[in-house]
Amino acid sequence: MSEKSPVLATMSEEELDARHAEKMRKKKAARDKIIATKTVEKGLLIVHTGKGKGKSTAAFGLVFRAIGNDMRVGIVQFVKGRWETGERRALERFSDQVTITAMGDGFTWETQDRQRDIAAARAAWERAKALILDDEHQMVVLDELNIVLRYDYIPVGEVVDFLRDHKPEMKHVVVTGRNAREELIELADLVTEMEMVKHPFRSGVKAQVGIEF
Amino acid sequence: MSEKSPVLATMSEEELDARHAEKMRKKKAARDKIIATKTVEKGLLIVHTGKGKGKSTAAFGLVFRAIGNDMRVGIVQFVKGRWETGERRALERFSDQVTITAMGDGFTWETQDRQRDIAAARAAWERAKALILDDEHQMVVLDELNIVLRYDYIPVGEVVDFLRDHKPEMKHVVVTGRNAREELIELADLVTEMEMVKHPFRSGVKAQVGIEF
Repeated sequence: MSEKSPVLATMSEEELDARHAEKMRKKKAARDKIIATKTVEKGLLIVHTGKGKGKSTAAFGLVFRAIGNDMRVGIVQFVKGRWETGERRALERFSDQVTITAMGDGFTWETQDRQRDIAAARAAWERAKALILDDEHQMVVLDELNIVLRYDYIPVGEVVDFLRDHKPEMKHVVVTGRNAREELIELADLVTEMEMVKHPFRSGVKAQVGIEF
Repeated sequence: MSEKSPVLATMSEEELDARHAEKMRKKKAARDKIIATKTVEKGLLIVHTGKGKGKSTAAFGLVFRAIGNDMRVGIVQFVKGRWETGERRALERFSDQVTITAMGDGFTWETQDRQRDIAAARAAWERAKALILDDEHQMVVLDELNIVLRYDYIPVGEVVDFLRDHKPEMKHVVVTGRNAREELIELADLVTEMEMVKHPFRSGVKAQVGIEF
């Protein structure tokens, strides 16, 4: 609800226009000044966490943006979902620019075999390290790594040490998954928490093609 | 910091494995039960808001997922950004499935002409309505519509009434932008708030190709 303030309500359209122009001029000046001070260029460690939707989806959005900028991207999926067909099929059209590794029979809600999950997580992490170290990919997405760290399948200290000490300066690394560990947030350059405000499951709506998978 | 609890620390690997298997079994059973109750299939009104990054990026992720599922998507950009090259170039490879409309010289930080902005917003909204009503597109993204509503360039009541009364049952509509209006959140099926936990601007890092544009 944003009722106009009494002052605004008494202004003519022309006065509103003039007021707006002045406000925007100031905003632009402030913004230009801020941007001028931002001169560092570096590969970012980005974390998408929180209970809301959009963590992996935003990572895939970054992938497509990077692809559009002629970058090459490596993707490691630490949790093999049943619902990943949409992105995969879209990414197939960019197979010259994208390398996808999914943990074979790895961690899903379907498995109850902890040792197999640990082995699969380890294999995926080894692959992730290679993608981060190589000269070929400019961006690496570690989809749902957070869940692996949460379950201690890979010690968080090992991951944080590797990223701190070995991530090439210009490489972008994107980590997704709820419950991001504090140590990772600490190291990250950009952290977004996706909060669920409203979810259609609450009103009985099922997962649908094009939205959930 | 998640030190293992004293109880867990005394368990053998085998005991941990058994405990894990049992926990996962319960989780899967609970999840299957929930999914079984979700039977409604409908087009969703999705809102990405909040001050954090990822609102438009997650919308673009949804676009690519939809494309991968052979859907056709209409995109209306209510704010013409200087930094949109990446997505655009990636989307060009799907020009048979995607229709993009950008507000010509519309609202940006660069303009201070309120009347021109209002006219451009109006034109974009008319385009948006046509995309929502047609039988051709299964998903419509209204990128940064929230900013237009916030400035009252289009009355929020008009938009909410249209979506409530005229959005076809199966069409997905995705609205992005910070400061989503209450009325829109009220109507939406799925609302995610992207919260900024950490931003690289704070440490002097500039906007970079592949991340910001």
